[in-house]
Amino acid sequence: MPNTASEHIVTAYSDELAALAQSIAEMGGLVEVSIENGTRSLLKLDRELADLTIAADQRIDDMQRRIDDMAVSMIARRQPMASDLRAIVTAIHVANDLERIGDMAKQLARRSLKLEGINLQPTFYNGVRNMTALVLHQVKDALDAYANREAPAAVEVCNRDDEVDAMYTSLFRELLTYMLEDPRNITTCTHLLFCAKNLERIGDHATNIAERAYYLATGKQLTSEVQELQRTQIKA
Amino acid sequence: MPNTASEHIVTAYSDELAALAQSIAEMGGLVEVSIENGTRSLLKLDRELADLTIAADQRIDDMQRRIDDMAVSMIARRQPMASDLRAIVTAIHVANDLERIGDMAKQLARRSLKLEGINLQPTFYNGVRNMTALVLHQVKDALDAYANREAPAAVEVCNRDDEVDAMYTSLFRELLTYMLEDPRNITTCTHLLFCAKNLERIGDHATNIAERAYYLATGKQLTSEVQELQRTQIKA
Repeated sequence: MPNTASEHIVTAYSDELAALAQSIAEMGGLVEVSIENGTRSLLKLDRELADLTIAADQRIDDMQRRIDDMAVSMIARRQPMASDLRAIVTAIHVANDLERIGDMAKQLARRSLKLEGINLQPTFYNGVRNMTALVLHQVKDALDAYANREAPAAVEVCNRDDEVDAMYTSLFRELLTYMLEDPRNITTCTHLLFCAKNLERIGDHATNIAERAYYLATGKQLTSEVQELQRTQIKA
Repeated sequence: MPNTASEHIVTAYSDELAALAQSIAEMGGLVEVSIENGTRSLLKLDRELADLTIAADQRIDDMQRRIDDMAVSMIARRQPMASDLRAIVTAIHVANDLERIGDMAKQLARRSLKLEGINLQPTFYNGVRNMTALVLHQVKDALDAYANREAPAAVEVCNRDDEVDAMYTSLFRELLTYMLEDPRNITTCTHLLFCAKNLERIGDHATNIAERAYYLATGKQLTSEVQELQRTQIKA
C-alpha cells in the first residue's frame, strides 16, 4: 500500500467507481461460464472441459483479490460519502459471493473426474441439468439487479430461491430412490447428490447478491416481510 | 453513516482496534460452541440442542454485520495506515469465514432433525465425532494464530488441513460401504455424508482464517512453497 498522502491520483473518482462495477461484471461473466462448463463437463464426462473449469477458478480468485484491493484502496484514499461507501463495500461482498460460486463450479468439474469410467444412466442427469439452468438464471438475474440497482428484480430472485430449494429436495429424493433400487447406483448417485448440493448453494449465493442489490437500491435490508409483501402484490 | 466531519470521536483509535479484535474473538467463541452443539445434537438426536444451534446462527450473523459496520466505519473515518488497514480488512474477511462456519454448524443441527426417528447405528457416528474434534481443533488454532499474529502456528493449521481432507475421504468411503452392505442404511448415511462434507468445509474456512493470520503476521501471502518449506523444517 503506497503512502496515500504522497500518491499522485491520476484517475477521477467516478472512473474508479465505474472500474469497480466493471470488474464485478467481468467476474460475474467468468463465473457464469464456469457454472455452465462445470455442469457440462459433468454431463459429458469431458475431462478437458473439467480441467479448463478448474483452471478458471484461479482466475476468479485473482479477480476477487483485485476487486478487494481496489475497494479497500478507494475507501482509504477517497473517504467516500455514505452512498458511495455502501456501493464499495457491497462490491467486496458481491465479489466474495462470486468467488464462492466459482468454487462450487470447480467442485462440479472435479466431481466429473471422479465419475469417469462409471456406468452412466442419462435419467440421473436430467435433474442436475434442470437445476443448473435454474441457478444460472438466478445468478444472471441477481447480477443484473445488482448492476442496475433494481429492487423489484432483486426481490424476485430472492423469492425464486424457494424454487431452487424445492428442486433440490425433489432431486435429493429422486437420487435416493435410484440408490435404493439398485446398490450399483450408490456411488454415482452419491456424487450427483453433492453436485445437487453445490447447485443449491450457488442459488444461495445468488440470493445473497440479490439481497445486496436490494440494499444498494433502497438503503434497507431485504426482510422476509418485504419479500412477502411483494410476493402478494405480484400475485394480486 | 453519520457525517464524519461533524462527528465527535469519543474513543481512541487503539481502543477501536482492540474492540474489533475483541468482537472477532467473541464471534469465534460463539462459532466454536455452535460446532460442538451442532454435532452433539446430531449424535444424540437432541432436538432442543438443534433448535438452540439454529437460533445461535442468527446471533452469529448479527455479529458479522456489526463487525462489518465497525470495520468499514473505521476505514472511512480514520484513514488507517497500511498495517492497520490490513488488520481491519482482515477482520472483515475473518468474520465472513466465521459466519460461514456458523452456517455449517446450523446445517449439522438441521440434519439432526431429519435423522429423527431413523434407526441409528453407533458405528456410523464415530467418523463424524472424530472429524468434529479435528476441525474444532483447527478452528481454535486458526483463531489463536490470528489473535496472536503467529505465522508458524498459522502454517501448521494450513498443513493440517491435509489430515482433515484425508479423514473426510476415508469417512466418505466408509459411509458408502454401509450403504452398499444394506440399502436400509442409505438414507441415514446420505445425511451423514453431508455432515462430513460440512465438517470438511469448516476445515477449509479454518485454513482461510489461518492464511489471513499469516498475511497479518508477515505481510505476505501464504504460498504452497512456504508451507512445504516449513513442513520440511518441522520434519528435519
